[in-house]
Amino acid sequence: MRSVGTPGEILGLIRRGEATTRNAVAGATGLARSTVAGRIDRLIADGLISEDGDAPSTGGRPPALLAFNRHAGVVLVADLGATHGRLAVTDLAGEPMAEVAVDLDIAAGPEAVLHRVEAEFDALLDTTNRGGDAVSAIGIGVPGPVEFAAGRAVNPPIMPGWHGYPIRDRLSARFGAPCLVDNDVNIMALGEHWVAAPRPDNLLFVKVGTGIGSGLILDGCLHRGAQGAAGDIGHVQIAAAEGVLCRCGNEGCLEAVAGGRALADQLAGRGAATATSRDVVRLAAAGDHIAVSAIREAGRRIGRVLASMVNILNPESIVVGGDVAEAGEHLLAGIREAVYRRSTALATAHLRVTTSTLGDRAGITGAAAMAIEHVLDPIVVDASLLAAKGATA
Amino acid sequence: MRSVGTPGEILGLIRRGEATTRNAVAGATGLARSTVAGRIDRLIADGLISEDGDAPSTGGRPPALLAFNRHAGVVLVADLGATHGRLAVTDLAGEPMAEVAVDLDIAAGPEAVLHRVEAEFDALLDTTNRGGDAVSAIGIGVPGPVEFAAGRAVNPPIMPGWHGYPIRDRLSARFGAPCLVDNDVNIMALGEHWVAAPRPDNLLFVKVGTGIGSGLILDGCLHRGAQGAAGDIGHVQIAAAEGVLCRCGNEGCLEAVAGGRALADQLAGRGAATATSRDVVRLAAAGDHIAVSAIREAGRRIGRVLASMVNILNPESIVVGGDVAEAGEHLLAGIREAVYRRSTALATAHLRVTTSTLGDRAGITGAAAMAIEHVLDPIVVDASLLAAKGATA
Repeated sequence: MRSVGTPGEILGLIRRGEATTRNAVAGATGLARSTVAGRIDRLIADGLISEDGDAPSTGGRPPALLAFNRHAGVVLVADLGATHGRLAVTDLAGEPMAEVAVDLDIAAGPEAVLHRVEAEFDALLDTTNRGGDAVSAIGIGVPGPVEFAAGRAVNPPIMPGWHGYPIRDRLSARFGAPCLVDNDVNIMALGEHWVAAPRPDNLLFVKVGTGIGSGLILDGCLHRGAQGAAGDIGHVQIAAAEGVLCRCGNEGCLEAVAGGRALADQLAGRGAATATSRDVVRLAAAGDHIAVSAIREAGRRIGRVLASMVNILNPESIVVGGDVAEAGEHLLAGIREAVYRRSTALATAHLRVTTSTLGDRAGITGAAAMAIEHVLDPIVVDASLLAAKGATA
Repeated sequence: MRSVGTPGEILGLIRRGEATTRNAVAGATGLARSTVAGRIDRLIADGLISEDGDAPSTGGRPPALLAFNRHAGVVLVADLGATHGRLAVTDLAGEPMAEVAVDLDIAAGPEAVLHRVEAEFDALLDTTNRGGDAVSAIGIGVPGPVEFAAGRAVNPPIMPGWHGYPIRDRLSARFGAPCLVDNDVNIMALGEHWVAAPRPDNLLFVKVGTGIGSGLILDGCLHRGAQGAAGDIGHVQIAAAEGVLCRCGNEGCLEAVAGGRALADQLAGRGAATATSRDVVRLAAAGDHIAVSAIREAGRRIGRVLASMVNILNPESIVVGGDVAEAGEHLLAGIREAVYRRSTALATAHLRVTTSTLGDRAGITGAAAMAIEHVLDPIVVDASLLAAKGATA
């Protein structure tokens, strides 16, 4: 829905293989040959594309082939959870060059956690033999609400000490590159959208782990909402949870009856050794009927809320991820049952409901997508972020 | 979130008064003076802007002032409901030059209804002394789901004979101008968004009339969804309606217990003379306690669904319109009660819940906004629509 022909968009055509010669770029954008030449020369000077090889000739000298140079820079990405994190260095196509999974305690506060993140990034950079000046951008996901334009967490319930901390500014200054910070479920949604083929315009990603959250891709872009609070499906109040107290302080939240924590508590109450959502998944994988039944019922309850979202947002795709989604088809079966029963026929006509294809790598994939799209096509992100680049360059 | 500097965007700066000299346009867009000159000359040649008067001088010859010429063309707009319609000719600022409200029966089918629409447009054009060649665009709202890119209704429940009928193509050919067709609630949402000051990025418009529907402005744009079915809040299933049959064939829909038709039936069952939602509103306006109580309870039920939408979409503004919303503050009070009780604190921190400021003119205002934005800044709409202009020019 936007104009074509900016350098970022020309680069997009080349990256996606949609136009690989100067003629093809001119044809796809409607720009004059001379304009195309100027913009491509600029991309070559920036090292972002190279021009070589031969395209199939249509007579005369074969045209040179334009290729995206995925090694023109690297991005640093981190998906920080409550108790563990995943960090990586990727090239500009999002391919990991070095990656590490670590235990960490997000509740230790920003100083301790970001110090660790910086040390891990330094170590990962070392293994790739790329100096710090190769860093084009940084993408970070954290387990709480984020004011995206400012790159700060906002009253995050499980991140004591992080409220208002300038995550973006600290990492941006440390590595001399623009930094983008978002909620962990939002970056998982970006990751699933980035790898989906064909890429749908409207995708709802639902994470069912200890808690329940969602990330919304609407009309091709992540929808963050007025306070960055969009996607908060876990605290939607449902009839089945009436009177049940939630960790958020409210009663009747979906998460309080269908989240992994709630499932573990329910099963523990019946004598099972389930302390966490992973225990529930293990039990279900071992064929425990009560665990399977509990997961399926959780799926139905989540599905009832998703059914409303399907009527209201009319997406092409729902992707279900998180620990509990790894319990085979049980969660998905419950979700599908409720969605197809309770949504309108028109809205489900072409709807696909699937499990995550990226699993626990959805977060860093999305963080890379967010950082790379920012570097390569900055017009699609906030102007405030461009300022960050200038401030740290 | 898109590039600046296209002719449509330069025109936008001038229309909104954000840049009224060539220098100011160059400053706001970052374009070269010569590029700005070329684009402004083109807009002047098209008659869309004029250049005259004097801006405050900063020394030397005073710069000429650029002004949007709202009379460069007219748009034809119609908001077609089940039993009545409103049609208008407006200038390019959306100001009505002639307007008429008519009774019509949408169920009479597209031939009869569009014949009438064409005759009304001809008559309205006559009164404005503008010939048919002044028509820049046409905007139409219809009471059913629409495939926006094709300009056709899709299985509309209360529009027999309209499924797949080429509304857009017929009117476009008849008046030699591009035509945009959308759902009636979507155009009402566009209308409320168009007049809101300041204009929020995220606005949910809810229409409570005979039925219940909504239109979603997300990140500044109308969200239509994969099948154009987005906003279908009326057929969200709710616990309070379990077992109640809805006109859609499903059970438990919000509309089946909280729509104007349902309210009329409920009150009639208790001996009131309420055949339609307007009767319910009249009764409430006369102070009938039972009618007031029924409207307030309907508000609570609608509010429960809106509370989920607030958590999930995190809008700045909810605007409530439609017949039943005209029943004073009763409906709004019930909606607010449920939304503030059931949404998260973060999502309601800055949320405004208000009644429509446009009332029964929201639809034509939005139809005008849709048509005018298309004419003046076509890059924000589908490329398929641009083709329509070429086809009929």
